[in-house]
Amino acid sequence: MRDAYHEHLDGLNASLVRLTGLVAGALGRATQALVDADLDLAQQVISQDADIDAMYADIEQQAFDLLARQQPVAGDLRAIVTSLRIVADLERSGDYATHVAEVARRRHPSPAVPAQLAPTVLEMGQMVQRIVAKAGAVIASRDLRLAAEIERDDDVIDALHQRLFGVLLDDGWDGGVEAAIDVILCSRYYERAADHAVSVARRVSYLITGERVVEPI
Amino acid sequence: MRDAYHEHLDGLNASLVRLTGLVAGALGRATQALVDADLDLAQQVISQDADIDAMYADIEQQAFDLLARQQPVAGDLRAIVTSLRIVADLERSGDYATHVAEVARRRHPSPAVPAQLAPTVLEMGQMVQRIVAKAGAVIASRDLRLAAEIERDDDVIDALHQRLFGVLLDDGWDGGVEAAIDVILCSRYYERAADHAVSVARRVSYLITGERVVEPI
Repeated sequence: MRDAYHEHLDGLNASLVRLTGLVAGALGRATQALVDADLDLAQQVISQDADIDAMYADIEQQAFDLLARQQPVAGDLRAIVTSLRIVADLERSGDYATHVAEVARRRHPSPAVPAQLAPTVLEMGQMVQRIVAKAGAVIASRDLRLAAEIERDDDVIDALHQRLFGVLLDDGWDGGVEAAIDVILCSRYYERAADHAVSVARRVSYLITGERVVEPI
Repeated sequence: MRDAYHEHLDGLNASLVRLTGLVAGALGRATQALVDADLDLAQQVISQDADIDAMYADIEQQAFDLLARQQPVAGDLRAIVTSLRIVADLERSGDYATHVAEVARRRHPSPAVPAQLAPTVLEMGQMVQRIVAKAGAVIASRDLRLAAEIERDDDVIDALHQRLFGVLLDDGWDGGVEAAIDVILCSRYYERAADHAVSVARRVSYLITGERVVEPI
């Protein structure tokens, strides 16, 4: 049987997994709002960021209480400090969902993303949603194979970001400056959200293997 | 006389102040490289990011060692955990300096910023450099008045970001899509770097007052 202390540690981990789910959902809905020019959905994502922030504060407090009361050492200490990092990464990813939703709201009722780029933006948003969900699975399972998958998924995101850049900078681009700015900002938000998911996966891997990954994201 | 433990705590704080100086310097040089289309300077900023990352890893290790060996409680515990957050904020701000330098490098030998926008971009970059330097002063002095100043400085950054947006989206804008994307990305990098400095100031304020600032940045 697990003692109360290890139950608290498990609880902290479970909270991180739940938060990851909230953030992945926010990214998915923000993407939907963006490509559908759906104002209600955009508003929902923006107002639900408060739930993510509340959960962030709650997890911080849980971690802090464990540090203060239990004075953990070695592996447990490392796990708790890592939780503090992970929760910050997740909160930032959630912010990027809000930023995408804000772009959708700013251009409503016009769509922020021109039809010709919508498939690429949709692919990018959905991929980021899956990457973040996968980061949750890594936290839950501590599966190194899954953590490695996230690195490869992130390369796809970077390639999509470059593809959008290429289209917008091509002489044939006639969609105007406003659309170009909106698309590049959203693309950049997705790229950053995915980077934070990679960071989460690396932090969990470091906990398991003790090897720090220093490659640039 | 301070004991060895408190000397370690002081050392941790001094390292944070030094790191803040490195990051502020990187932002200043990146801005210079951007407005002058100076490839050498851009390269220098990009390659020196490794120094910032090394210092980040070193400070993390210092904080972790203090947690593991000293099992601090209450105020000291909070200060060490806060250091872990602050160092992550600073490392991200340093990344944004690199991103600005990369824009300068990508467009070289052309300037990435059109002459008509150079003064605003320069103002923004220099202001961010000062905000980050001020965050270092807040860490060193724990001066709440200075921390409050950073919040107001950040409002100026946001206003400059909006001003650039306004120019680029105006019908009179004839600088093309490429320049618009470069400028808006750099503006966004500055805005984020400043947000991280605000976050540092808030974390220090929270340490002193115990009151968490929840306003959005």
